[in-house]
Amino acid sequence: MRTAIYPQGSMSLLSQLEIERLQSSSDEELYKLFRNCCLAVLNAGSKTDSSAEIYDRFKDFEVNLIRRERGVKLELINPPEEAFVDGHLIAGMQELVEAVLRDILFTGERYSRQMLEQADTDTLTHVVFDILRNARTIKPSTEPNMVVCWGGHSINDIEYQYTKDVGYQIGLRTMNICTGCGPGAMKGPMKGATIGHAKQRFKDGRYLGLTEPGIIAAEPPNPIVNELVILPDIEKRLEAFVRVAHGIVIFPGGAGTAEELLYLLGILMHPKNAQQKFPVVLTGPASSKAYFEALDAFIGDVLGEQARELYTIIVADPEEVARYMKAGAQQVKTYREQAGDAYHFNWSLYIDDDFQRPFAPTHENVANLNLHRDQEPAKLAADMRRAFSAIVAGNVKDEGMRNIRQHGPFSIHGEKDIMKKLDQLLKAFVEQGRMKLPGSVYHPCYKVITD
Amino acid sequence: MRTAIYPQGSMSLLSQLEIERLQSSSDEELYKLFRNCCLAVLNAGSKTDSSAEIYDRFKDFEVNLIRRERGVKLELINPPEEAFVDGHLIAGMQELVEAVLRDILFTGERYSRQMLEQADTDTLTHVVFDILRNARTIKPSTEPNMVVCWGGHSINDIEYQYTKDVGYQIGLRTMNICTGCGPGAMKGPMKGATIGHAKQRFKDGRYLGLTEPGIIAAEPPNPIVNELVILPDIEKRLEAFVRVAHGIVIFPGGAGTAEELLYLLGILMHPKNAQQKFPVVLTGPASSKAYFEALDAFIGDVLGEQARELYTIIVADPEEVARYMKAGAQQVKTYREQAGDAYHFNWSLYIDDDFQRPFAPTHENVANLNLHRDQEPAKLAADMRRAFSAIVAGNVKDEGMRNIRQHGPFSIHGEKDIMKKLDQLLKAFVEQGRMKLPGSVYHPCYKVITD
Amino acid sequence: MRTAIYPQGSMSLLSQLEIERLQSSSDEELYKLFRNCCLAVLNAGSKTDSSAEIYDRFKDFEVNLIRRERGVKLELINPPEEAFVDGHLIAGMQELVEAVLRDILFTGERYSRQMLEQADTDTLTHVVFDILRNARTIKPSTEPNMVVCWGGHSINDIEYQYTKDVGYQIGLRTMNICTGCGPGAMKGPMKGATIGHAKQRFKDGRYLGLTEPGIIAAEPPNPIVNELVILPDIEKRLEAFVRVAHGIVIFPGGAGTAEELLYLLGILMHPKNAQQKFPVVLTGPASSKAYFEALDAFIGDVLGEQARELYTIIVADPEEVARYMKAGAQQVKTYREQAGDAYHFNWSLYIDDDFQRPFAPTHENVANLNLHRDQEPAKLAADMRRAFSAIVAGNVKDEGMRNIRQHGPFSIHGEKDIMKKLDQLLKAFVEQGRMKLPGSVYHPCYKVITD
Amino acid sequence: MRTAIYPQGSMSLLSQLEIERLQSSSDEELYKLFRNCCLAVLNAGSKTDSSAEIYDRFKDFEVNLIRRERGVKLELINPPEEAFVDGHLIAGMQELVEAVLRDILFTGERYSRQMLEQADTDTLTHVVFDILRNARTIKPSTEPNMVVCWGGHSINDIEYQYTKDVGYQIGLRTMNICTGCGPGAMKGPMKGATIGHAKQRFKDGRYLGLTEPGIIAAEPPNPIVNELVILPDIEKRLEAFVRVAHGIVIFPGGAGTAEELLYLLGILMHPKNAQQKFPVVLTGPASSKAYFEALDAFIGDVLGEQARELYTIIVADPEEVARYMKAGAQQVKTYREQAGDAYHFNWSLYIDDDFQRPFAPTHENVANLNLHRDQEPAKLAADMRRAFSAIVAGNVKDEGMRNIRQHGPFSIHGEKDIMKKLDQLLKAFVEQGRMKLPGSVYHPCYKVITD
Repeated sequence: MRTAIYPQGSMSLLSQLEIERLQSSSDEELYKLFRNCCLAVLNAGSKTDSSAEIYDRFKDFEVNLIRRERGVKLELINPPEEAFVDGHLIAGMQELVEAVLRDILFTGERYSRQMLEQADTDTLTHVVFDILRNARTIKPSTEPNMVVCWGGHSINDIEYQYTKDVGYQIGLRTMNICTGCGPGAMKGPMKGATIGHAKQRFKDGRYLGLTEPGIIAAEPPNPIVNELVILPDIEKRLEAFVRVAHGIVIFPGGAGTAEELLYLLGILMHPKNAQQKFPVVLTGPASSKAYFEALDAFIGDVLGEQARELYTIIVADPEEVARYMKAGAQQVKTYREQAGDAYHFNWSLYIDDDFQRPFAPTHENVANLNLHRDQEPAKLAADMRRAFSAIVAGNVKDEGMRNIRQHGPFSIHGEKDIMKKLDQLLKAFVEQGRMKLPGSVYHPCYKVITD
Repeated sequence: MRTAIYPQGSMSLLSQLEIERLQSSSDEELYKLFRNCCLAVLNAGSKTDSSAEIYDRFKDFEVNLIRRERGVKLELINPPEEAFVDGHLIAGMQELVEAVLRDILFTGERYSRQMLEQADTDTLTHVVFDILRNARTIKPSTEPNMVVCWGGHSINDIEYQYTKDVGYQIGLRTMNICTGCGPGAMKGPMKGATIGHAKQRFKDGRYLGLTEPGIIAAEPPNPIVNELVILPDIEKRLEAFVRVAHGIVIFPGGAGTAEELLYLLGILMHPKNAQQKFPVVLTGPASSKAYFEALDAFIGDVLGEQARELYTIIVADPEEVARYMKAGAQQVKTYREQAGDAYHFNWSLYIDDDFQRPFAPTHENVANLNLHRDQEPAKLAADMRRAFSAIVAGNVKDEGMRNIRQHGPFSIHGEKDIMKKLDQLLKAFVEQGRMKLPGSVYHPCYKVITD
Repeated sequence: MRTAIYPQGSMSLLSQLEIERLQSSSDEELYKLFRNCCLAVLNAGSKTDSSAEIYDRFKDFEVNLIRRERGVKLELINPPEEAFVDGHLIAGMQELVEAVLRDILFTGERYSRQMLEQADTDTLTHVVFDILRNARTIKPSTEPNMVVCWGGHSINDIEYQYTKDVGYQIGLRTMNICTGCGPGAMKGPMKGATIGHAKQRFKDGRYLGLTEPGIIAAEPPNPIVNELVILPDIEKRLEAFVRVAHGIVIFPGGAGTAEELLYLLGILMHPKNAQQKFPVVLTGPASSKAYFEALDAFIGDVLGEQARELYTIIVADPEEVARYMKAGAQQVKTYREQAGDAYHFNWSLYIDDDFQRPFAPTHENVANLNLHRDQEPAKLAADMRRAFSAIVAGNVKDEGMRNIRQHGPFSIHGEKDIMKKLDQLLKAFVEQGRMKLPGSVYHPCYKVITD
Repeated sequence: MRTAIYPQGSMSLLSQLEIERLQSSSDEELYKLFRNCCLAVLNAGSKTDSSAEIYDRFKDFEVNLIRRERGVKLELINPPEEAFVDGHLIAGMQELVEAVLRDILFTGERYSRQMLEQADTDTLTHVVFDILRNARTIKPSTEPNMVVCWGGHSINDIEYQYTKDVGYQIGLRTMNICTGCGPGAMKGPMKGATIGHAKQRFKDGRYLGLTEPGIIAAEPPNPIVNELVILPDIEKRLEAFVRVAHGIVIFPGGAGTAEELLYLLGILMHPKNAQQKFPVVLTGPASSKAYFEALDAFIGDVLGEQARELYTIIVADPEEVARYMKAGAQQVKTYREQAGDAYHFNWSLYIDDDFQRPFAPTHENVANLNLHRDQEPAKLAADMRRAFSAIVAGNVKDEGMRNIRQHGPFSIHGEKDIMKKLDQLLKAFVEQGRMKLPGSVYHPCYKVITD
C-alpha cells in the first residue's frame, strides 16, 4: 500500500536543500528518526506499549520524501491501516505527521547532538524554547491556563474514568491540557476537557502533547492531541513540561510518573525556586487512595518532609482539583506579573544542570547512581529520577528493551532503607499493573540491591 | 438565586419596542412561552421527560428582561443549578437561551397564530425557511452534508452506544448531525460526531437541534447542540427536518420515531417526489434487529410494499451507515445541481397540506382520525402520523399530559387489521421501554379500538 | 448588454416569495424603486448630479430577478459600463447592488408607506434602528468612533483636498467615516481615511454611506463606501446620521449642508437634549473662512446665540479637527456609560415629531412654511430645514426637478429680515458654485419673497 | 525623547539569548545594522535620498533592547517625529520596525558573512528562500499574481501619476504589488493598487517591499508597504525580486532601474531559461516615450536584438499594462503547473554565479569591470549591471557616498562605442533629474572613459 500526503501550511514550504536532508539516502540516522516517529504517530490505535514490537511489526514501512519543485510530497509505504478512513488519511493524523516533519527537520538542522552536548545551561533552555516556539506552541497573548497532567499509561477503568472527570471539570473552567501523549492518564483528561470545552464554546482548546523519539512509539499521541512537539530527549521534554505548566495534576502511574514527580520535586526544592508559585496536585479516585499514601510516604522518607509540602493530595473530587488549578493559575499570573516573567514560558524557574543533562540508561550508568542520603536531597532526587528513567527505558523503549534482552536487568544499588522502600514501591506498581499495558506478564527489567 | 445574562452578538441589539414585547407585563402568552423555553434549555441535565413535572417543579423560575439602553439584560430568577459552573452560566447554555430569545421574538413578531392559520402552502414553507434563515442555520456555501438522525429518547445502553458509533463514523466523514434535541438517539450521534470531527480537524462541525415549544422541556437540547432552532409547532419542525436533510438515519425509538417515519414516508410516496434523491436508513445494533423487522412489517402491511422501498435497513454496521449517507449525499448534490435546487433547503420537495397543517391532539380530533385502507396510502400515512403524534403529546408534553389526566386515554379507532398491528407495535414499544425514560411505570395514554 | 450577478452571503438566501415580490410584474412601484436604486449605484462614476438626466439617459436599463431554486440571480440589462473591469462587475459595485436589494426588500416588506405614516415617534425610531441593524451597521462591541462628515457635493479643489486631509487625520486616529455618499465632501474624507487606516493597519475601517431613494442617483455611493444603507426618506436618513454619530464634521456645502446643519441644531437646542455630548465642528481651508463666517452669522441671526454654542469653527487645521473629534468621542463614551445608553445608537437623543415626519417638497407645502421668529427657535429651525430640503429637491432630485420644470420655482415666504439673510446666503451658494456640479449654468429653483 | 514599543506576535517571543545578541554592548556591528535599519524605516517621511545625510542628522538616535522576562521591549531614543500621531507610533511603522528586528536577527543568527561567502549557488538560493519564508512572504496557496514594479525613486509628477494609474488597474485585476520600497515609482503603484483593491474588496492586498541595508535609508518603505523584507545585500534582493515575480513592470528610472533591467535581461538571456514564461513590460506616460526609445536602443546596441525580445514596451496605456500582466501571470501559472514548479517561488529560474555573488562597489572593482563586446552578452550584462550598481551606491548609499567623497568619482572604462552610448544614457538620466531627488544639484559620482 502506497499513499501520498501533501503537507499544508508552513510545512509545504520546504526548500530543496531541506528535502534532500531528510531523504533516506542523505543522512541515514536523521531519516531513521523521522521514519520511526512517523510510524509511531500513524500507529496511534496501537494496543501495545512495546516500541521494539512495533518497529519489528512494521519493518516494511517507509516514508519517502519526494522532491517536487512546489514543495514536498510524503509518500507512505505500508502505513498502519487504522490511520485511514475510506482510503483517506485522517486529517488529525496528517497534522501529527507534519509535526514530526517540522520538529525532526528543525532540530536536526539547528541542534546537532554535538552542539547540545557542549551547550551551557542557558543555551539548553533556549533550545527548549526555540523548539516550542517553532512549533507555535508559545502563544504570547494567552492567560495562564495550561494544566499539565501526568500519570500512567496503564491504569484501570475506574482511574481512567476519573482522569476524564478531572479533565471535564478543567475544561469547563476553560483551562487547557498538556500531557505526554499516549493512552491512560495522558488521554483521559484530554477527552474530558474536549467535552468541557465544547460546552463552554471554548473553540481554541489546546491539547498539547510533549514527547520524545524514545517514547513516542510506546505512547503515541492520542487523536485528540492538536499540538504535538517532539523534543530531542527526555530531559528536554521534562523541562518543556515544567516551563509551560501553570499547574500540574498527577494521576496514579508507574515508573514514568515517579520519574516525573521526582524531577519536579528536585527542581522545586531548590532554594532559588522558593518564591515560585507552582500548584501541584496528586489525585485519583477513592480506590487509589492507598496508592497515593504509599507514594507520599516514599517521598517523605527519601526526600524529607519539605518535599511533601510541595504538593497537595485530593482524593475523589474532580471539581475540587479543577478549582484548585484555576485558583493556582491565578496566583501564577499574579506572581509572574510582579516578577516580570512570561506567562507562556517560566523563564525564572531554576533548573540545575543535574536535571538538564541527558541520562543514558546503560547498565553502567545505572550501576553508578548514588542513591544514598549522604547528599543534598535535590541530588538524591536527581539520581532517583534517573533510576526510574532507566526502568521506563527497560520497560517500553526500543533501545532500552534491546539492552535488557542482551544484558539482563539493571542493578539498582543504594542505601538499605531507601532500597527497601523503593522495592516495595516498584512491587506495588507491578502488582497494580502499572508497568505495562494489560495482556502480558511483566518481567522486571531491574533488580533492587541493598548496599 | 438571581443571575444576569448579557446577550452577545445579534441578540444584544434589541430595540426598546422589542424588549417591551417580551416583558411579562406586556404580552402574557408570549412571555410564558419565552419563560418556559428558557427553563427547558437551562434544565438540560434533567432526568425526567415529563414536561408537566418540570414546569411544576420550577414554578418559581422567572426570566426578566431588563431594559437597558445598551440593549438587554436577562435576569434569571431561580434557574436550575446544573446550568452553572462556579456560579457562571455555561457558555453553551447562554447560547441556547439566546437562541430561545431570538426565535420566540422573531416568530412572535412576524408570524401570529392567526397569520399562520390563514397561510397557504407556499407561505408556510416560506415561514419555515424564514425562521431557519433568521437563525443562520441556512449556510449558502456548504456542501450537502447534513444527516438528520431520528430515534428514541429512551433507548437501552447498547443502542445508545450504537448511535454514538454511527455518529462517530459520520463525523469521520465530515458530515454534520441534526436531531430533535433531547437524550438517547438524539444525543448519541452528536457525541460520536464530535470525536470524529475532532480527529478530522473539522472545526465547523454542526450539531443542529430542531425543536418546538411543546417538546423542548421533555427533550431539552443536549449540551453539544451548537445550533438550536425552535419552530412554532411540530409540523413546521418536521418540515424543517426534511427540507434541511441530505439523508436521514432512523434509530430505534417509540411513538415519536414512528411519527417521524410515517411523516417522511407519506411525503416521499407522493408522485411529485418520485424523482427526489433522499437516502433513508433504518439502523440499530444486532440486538435491535427484531425491532426493525416489526416496524418494517407494519409499514409494509399498512402503507404497502412501495413504502418499504423508500428506506434501507442496515443492522450493526456503523461504517456502512456512514458510507451510505456519504454516497447518498453525493447523489443529492448531483440531483439538486441538475434540478437547480438549493443544497441548503430542499425547495422542490412537495409537502401536501395534510402534512403541513398543525394537528391539535384533542380527544375529539384523535377520535376522528381515519385509519382505514380505503384511501390513498399517503392519506392513511398522514392520519397514522397524527395518531402517533397524539401519543407523544399524551406521553411527555405538558398540555397533552394534563389533557389525559383530565379526560382519560385517547381512543384510537380504525380498520381491524390495522388496529391489531398498531396495538402490537405499541405494546412492543411499551415492553421495550421506549415510551418513557426508565424509572417510572408507563401508563398508556391511548386505547386502540377496532372498528 | 446583459450580465448576471449571483448575490453572496445573506442575499443569496431569498425565498421564492421574496423573489416574486421584486419582479417587475409583481409590484410595479417596488420594482421601479429597486431598479432606480440599482441604476444609481452602478452609475457611480457619473459626472452629473441631475437625477432626472440619469434616469432619462439609462431608460433601457433593466434589472431582472431570475428565480432560481438555489436563490436568486440578478440579470442586469444595459448597465453603465464604468461598473465593469474586463467584463466583470467590480466587487464593490456588486456589494452596493446587494445592499440595495437588501434594503428595498426589507423595508418594502416590513414598513409600508401607510404603516410609516401612522407610526408614532418611538416606532419611527425603531424603524430607523431596525433598518440599520438589518444592514449590520450596528456593531455591538465597537468603541464610539463614528465621525459623520457633511458638506457639499460640489466643492472646489482646495476644499476637496482639505476634506481628504481631515479624513486622513481622522483615519490616523482610527476613527471611522460616515457620509451621505456622493462626490465632494462626501468622498474626500473617506479617501483620506483609507490611507490613514492603512497606515494604522486598521483593517476594519468603516466607510458608511447613508442615503435615500430620492438622492441616491444625484449622489451615488463613491466606490470606497463599504457599508451602504438606503433609508426610506430624507428624514429617516437624517435621524440615522445623528443617532449613529459620535461627532459631526461639517465642511463647506450648499443647500443640503444647510438642511443638515439646521436639522442638527433644531434637535440639539431641545431642552431634553441639554445633557447630550455631541461634538460638532465646522471646518474648511483658509480660503473658506468667509463662508463659515456668513453661515455662522446666519445661524446667530435666525436661531440666536444659543445655537452658535452648539458647534466649534476650526479653520485650516485638519489635525486639530481630528483631535477634537477624538476627544469628543471620548466624552460621548463617558456620557453614554453613565447614562446607560448604547455606544452604537444614540437612543436617548430626543427628536421631535417636527423633525421626524417626512416633508413633501410641493409648491403648496413650501408656500405654507412659517419662517418667522414668532415661535420657538426649534420650530423655526424645523421649517427652515424644510425650505432647504425643498431647494435640494428642486436642484437634483428626479421628482423635484420635474415639479420645478412644470410649475416654476418654489416661493419661499417669510419675515423680512430673515428672508434678506436667506437670500444673501443662497446667492453666495450660487456664486460659489455649491448648488450644482460645475459645467452647467445654475437656474435657481426658488424665489425668496419678503412678507 | 524616549518611547517604547512592545513587539506583537512572533517578535514578542524572543529568548534571552536572542535579546542579548542585539544589545549594543554585545555585537557592535549587528547592533549598528539593526539601529540603522530601524532609523531608516522610522524616517519614512524623509525628503532626502542621501543615506549619509540621514545618518548624520539622526546621530543621537538609539534603539535599546530592554530585556524583560516576558519578551522584549524596544526603547526608541530620539526617533524621527513624523513616525508618531499624538505621541503614539503609527501601527504600520511598528510593523516595519518589527520586520527589521525579525530579519536582522534571523539573518544575523543563521547566515554569517563568512558562511555566505563560502556558500554555493544552491545554498544562496536557499538563503533567499529561507529569509522570505521566515518573513511569511511565501504564501503556499495563492495564485500567481505578484507584479514586481521597478522604476526611479525620482520621477516627475506626470510619471508618478502614471505609476498610480497602472497600480490602480493592476489592483482592479486583484493582483499584488512588489517594489523596492522608497518614493516615486516604488510608491505610486502601491497607492494606486490600494484603491483598486478597495473597490474589489480584495482584503488581503499585498504591498511587498524588498530592500537591503544599504538602500533602506535612501529609499525607506513607504507607509503602504505591509510586508517588508530586508535581504542581506543587493544581489539577494534582486534574486528575491525575480523569484517571487509573476511579471515585472518597469517604469522610467535612473541608474537603479538600469541595474535591475540589466540583471533581469542577463538572467533571461541564459539558454537554461529559454522556456521560462516571464512577462516584462516597459511603460510610461506619452511624455516618457523618448526615454524608453533611448533605453531600448541602448539594450539593442549593447546586448543585441535577442535581449530586446524579452520585453514589451507599452506607452500611455495603464489598462493594457494590467491586462498584459494578468494574461502573463496566467501563462506563468500554466507553465509552472506543467513544470511542477512552485507558484510562490520560481525555483527553476537559473541564476548564474555572476549574478549571485555580491559586488563591492570599490574604485578598484569598478575599474576592473569588463565592458567590452568580446564576451558572452550575459557576461557583459553582468558587468554592466555592476557598473550601474556602483553608480547607485555613489549616489545614495552611505558607504558609497563616503567613498566618493574621499576618492573622487568612479572611473568606468570600456569599449568606445559602448562607453559613448552609456555616457549618453547617463547624461539623459542626469538631465531628466533621475539620479537624485529634486532640490539638489547632482554631482556625478562617475567618469565614463573610453578605452
